[in-house]
Amino acid sequence: MINVIGFDADDTLWHNESLYHQAKEDLSRLMSEYEEPQEVKAHLDQIEVENITYYGYGIKSFILSMIETASQVSAGRVTAKEINAIIDIAKRMLTAPVDLVEGVEKTLANLSSEYDLLLITKGDQFEQERKIRLSGIAGYFRYLEVVGEKSADSYRSVLSKYNLEPTSFLMVGNSLRSDILPVLKIGGRAVYIPNELTWFHEHAGHQEIGDLEYIELEHITQLPDAIATNFFRENL
Amino acid sequence: MINVIGFDADDTLWHNESLYHQAKEDLSRLMSEYEEPQEVKAHLDQIEVENITYYGYGIKSFILSMIETASQVSAGRVTAKEINAIIDIAKRMLTAPVDLVEGVEKTLANLSSEYDLLLITKGDQFEQERKIRLSGIAGYFRYLEVVGEKSADSYRSVLSKYNLEPTSFLMVGNSLRSDILPVLKIGGRAVYIPNELTWFHEHAGHQEIGDLEYIELEHITQLPDAIATNFFRENL
Repeated sequence: MINVIGFDADDTLWHNESLYHQAKEDLSRLMSEYEEPQEVKAHLDQIEVENITYYGYGIKSFILSMIETASQVSAGRVTAKEINAIIDIAKRMLTAPVDLVEGVEKTLANLSSEYDLLLITKGDQFEQERKIRLSGIAGYFRYLEVVGEKSADSYRSVLSKYNLEPTSFLMVGNSLRSDILPVLKIGGRAVYIPNELTWFHEHAGHQEIGDLEYIELEHITQLPDAIATNFFRENL
Repeated sequence: MINVIGFDADDTLWHNESLYHQAKEDLSRLMSEYEEPQEVKAHLDQIEVENITYYGYGIKSFILSMIETASQVSAGRVTAKEINAIIDIAKRMLTAPVDLVEGVEKTLANLSSEYDLLLITKGDQFEQERKIRLSGIAGYFRYLEVVGEKSADSYRSVLSKYNLEPTSFLMVGNSLRSDILPVLKIGGRAVYIPNELTWFHEHAGHQEIGDLEYIELEHITQLPDAIATNFFRENL
């Protein structure tokens, strides 16, 4: 029996990866005199993953990786003007409006009447708090959590903080690696709603999921029916 | 009667501002061919405060402001090599060992036997989680919280999350603006332990504190006695 439903935020409740996608396009255009656009993007992807141990997630980390990429692909010829252009991209991303996924509000309104909802997102506290505030949907959540990394340990620690049992917890998100796998590992349930723009770093290998079971949906609006069908069988 | 003691972390439990201090020295040396060291530092201070609305707090925000400062004080002549040097400063700061204030561990061990301790720090989740993990003192705290900004509202919301009353809460920290003033405003108590290197942005004007009362100590090791003397009078 499910009591609490957890939601990832970026690319589950609101669009996010599209901002990064656009910024990568902008960077590769900016660096086009030094290197082919595809090469710039591949270089950035690599620097970003290498830098996670230093920077963690979020826009500021991404921008520092963009600056490092610009310096490297230009072989040290990047100009202050180009650096300024990258900082402008940062500020544009950090002030972008929050664009909710279609049907999110209705779905949360529906589910919040029956369940306690938990918003659990990883990344930069400051950036996530701003988006939660602007989203207009904070009121549907009983619990709001920003964590540095989504792992079995971090889910366990959030749930125990509110005296919640993993077995009555269902997590909903667009990342197998961050939203689905760690929750299944601690005995929770999970609904996977892939997003076409999910960051490649978030893909978990199929072998890691193994025999652990989760439900996959195409759209968040299908969630109330899916929960009723899949998690209430014993109670019918 | 105090039940819960909150502690700020940066420059209350461990040294932090010294890292920023060193980085500012490094930047002003790096930019010395363009501008006087004092001017570089003043410029950075200004950019940093302007950027808080975009970036929030933490090392990554600081480094982005350093890069912007370098671009401006060099009048657009900053080189990729200098940008790389700034990114190296970032990575050095982000991997620096956690240097506890003298006597912290003994003080926490003492107080945690009588009170529930809450660590409440503002800044970057990822950076703060790393320091908490490395500090070796996480075990003394019942509650750990990283918030985007320390305001009356954010203290209220953290306390209510754990069903704690402001009137039985005592906050300890080195910033009048972030640790003392907002807690007094919501009816809590506060102990101010100034640090010689407190960031100028954290100074609150005396007029803001007004008639609100708090205790000032020179060193954290004086805390157990100060609490016993000041907050237990009625119970003696």
